[in-house]
Amino acid sequence: MEVYLDNSATTRCYEEVREIVAKTMTEDYGNPSSMHRKGVEAEQYVKTAAQHIARTLKVLEKEIYFTSGGTESNNWALIGAAMANRRSGNHIIITLVEHPAVSAPVDFLQEQGFAVTRIGTDKQGRIKLEELKAAVTQETILISVIYVNNEIGSVQPIEDIGRIVHELNPNVIFHVDAIQAYGKYQIHPKKMKIDLLSVSGHKIHGPKGVGFLYVSEKVKMLPLIYGGGQQKGMRSGTDNVPGIAGLGCAAKRCYEQLKENTDHMYELKCHMVEGLKELEDVDIHGMDIMEGAPHIVSAAFRGVGSEVMLHTLEDRGIYISAGSACSTHKRSQSPTLAAIQADQVQLQSTVRFSFCETTTREEIDYTLTVLKEVLPMLRRYMRH
Amino acid sequence: MEVYLDNSATTRCYEEVREIVAKTMTEDYGNPSSMHRKGVEAEQYVKTAAQHIARTLKVLEKEIYFTSGGTESNNWALIGAAMANRRSGNHIIITLVEHPAVSAPVDFLQEQGFAVTRIGTDKQGRIKLEELKAAVTQETILISVIYVNNEIGSVQPIEDIGRIVHELNPNVIFHVDAIQAYGKYQIHPKKMKIDLLSVSGHKIHGPKGVGFLYVSEKVKMLPLIYGGGQQKGMRSGTDNVPGIAGLGCAAKRCYEQLKENTDHMYELKCHMVEGLKELEDVDIHGMDIMEGAPHIVSAAFRGVGSEVMLHTLEDRGIYISAGSACSTHKRSQSPTLAAIQADQVQLQSTVRFSFCETTTREEIDYTLTVLKEVLPMLRRYMRH
Repeated sequence: MEVYLDNSATTRCYEEVREIVAKTMTEDYGNPSSMHRKGVEAEQYVKTAAQHIARTLKVLEKEIYFTSGGTESNNWALIGAAMANRRSGNHIIITLVEHPAVSAPVDFLQEQGFAVTRIGTDKQGRIKLEELKAAVTQETILISVIYVNNEIGSVQPIEDIGRIVHELNPNVIFHVDAIQAYGKYQIHPKKMKIDLLSVSGHKIHGPKGVGFLYVSEKVKMLPLIYGGGQQKGMRSGTDNVPGIAGLGCAAKRCYEQLKENTDHMYELKCHMVEGLKELEDVDIHGMDIMEGAPHIVSAAFRGVGSEVMLHTLEDRGIYISAGSACSTHKRSQSPTLAAIQADQVQLQSTVRFSFCETTTREEIDYTLTVLKEVLPMLRRYMRH
Repeated sequence: MEVYLDNSATTRCYEEVREIVAKTMTEDYGNPSSMHRKGVEAEQYVKTAAQHIARTLKVLEKEIYFTSGGTESNNWALIGAAMANRRSGNHIIITLVEHPAVSAPVDFLQEQGFAVTRIGTDKQGRIKLEELKAAVTQETILISVIYVNNEIGSVQPIEDIGRIVHELNPNVIFHVDAIQAYGKYQIHPKKMKIDLLSVSGHKIHGPKGVGFLYVSEKVKMLPLIYGGGQQKGMRSGTDNVPGIAGLGCAAKRCYEQLKENTDHMYELKCHMVEGLKELEDVDIHGMDIMEGAPHIVSAAFRGVGSEVMLHTLEDRGIYISAGSACSTHKRSQSPTLAAIQADQVQLQSTVRFSFCETTTREEIDYTLTVLKEVLPMLRRYMRH
């Protein structure tokens, strides 16, 4: 049996995504910047994708900008907004549970002279709103919060954060890294006071190498990439028509089936967590089942190194992640696990299971059976 | 008959490129950062692509970094090298015939305090080496030259430039925008003293949304995009495995057939130029046929606006470009045509025909026949 439980690392593309990508590579392969029919046809794919996406967020089509993926979206949001609004203040707020695609460009901005406050969380990964309130000043220009944490699936109260921050300083730009949240939650930036929202294609059964940034028409931004003036001069480079068309297609489908999909994933999650609780010495990270994200279960099998567990399961055809797997193989300590004050044993033994809409109950059962079988053996081995 | 003569804007993907892209979207869809087998498999596609490309350039595999396309490659090369080497000097040299993907980030750098010299060309678009020599100082840290101009196909003496510049100042970083040259020329950065080289996938029958930057291991660079630390920390973001695999595949194939392809295109070019010369009042821009690039013919049909010509040919199934078509529909004046001192009439009436290896002699004949037929009519019409 092959069980892919690493959907937070990347997902399999929908068949219809593959088809539209293939079609725009060899049939409708024009450059949207070309003035002839083949260019206009290609441009239509881009427009359609922007429409599909705008509809899922209830925003304007012109507020959707395509990028090369979630990392570029995050970088552009942070660097583009910080640099464009430097004269209004130099203070940035993020949390201690951000993905490196947010924390690393913010480190860069700090080197450029910006002051950065990093908000902590409780043991379930919920950010401390009091700490946030205390951090906002008249110098604050930008706040960035990860909607669903990629490692433990904790979910931040985005609407509350948007309200609180804007009450304290109406000029603050609110960026949300929604890379693990889009396609799992109804996200309405206008209502939630989100100014910038980053999304990646390959986390929602769309293509790799494409994503988008929602940019509220009210926000002042600088480009990150300059050139031929595509996308209203805000993101130059020939539009990645196949990627964009594929992304639009995936976004549309995700939101058509949102409730069924998330209900299904919550069912799997409940089932898995129940099964894990029957095993000995397993700590489950994050919020209560229904409060956390539907697709992520993070657990520490005390006494079993996370890589050992990963490879043991791999031998049985089960693919999971040790840590977040969104960064390279490097074995650096997880800032999220540090933020939730995981102990040393948990830090070394935490793995992530992540589902998608096609994950089955049988696959979870198989995984639980394998875990039950291998755990005592692994623990005996580790003790020697 | 449908005749696509806009290959410098974008090309149709090879069938094998489409196949490998499709396969890595739904079969081998892992994330190279994942530690399990599916991640390792995915990583192998990236390694193979880097090997194919490195071989075409005779450079090291580890000197190839994947990007979201030519525009990102150019931006990263210029901004990354300038920012990383700011302490060595603040002078940058480019030419007046660069693509906006070079000139626009250099404008940005100029706003950041860098001094910029822009070298002019002769009437055929050849840069003035004396002017270049005079420009290089001990403050110069970076020079960027477009190998094949995207509008008129003029080709710069890259090897001479590399030698001259490094004789005058051995520390200068030499960036070459090879987006229209890669796949048409043998380019050997080590021999030609090129430190950075930008390439785009979709100009060589590879996918849109992917490209690479060759970075000599000796060059000091800052990233443009920060995050999970992929690509040795120099370009974060989940590797676009389908795009990269497709690009590797296209690069390999281009260079396997380089001579046949370019011979074929030169034949077409000769044939087309001969045909154009038989028409009345047609000016052909750029260098002598064999001295310019094999795939680009730029011509001014005096008295006929370029957009009128474009749409007239479009009605006959012939797709060409008015200006470079690499930037958006905006009707700004071409800096290349200005650099070669095109007159006002030429500026308004220049179009570009661009070939690929599958363009046929019949297609050129058909285009010439249509031109012969429509030109007198269009000119009569324009005079009224």
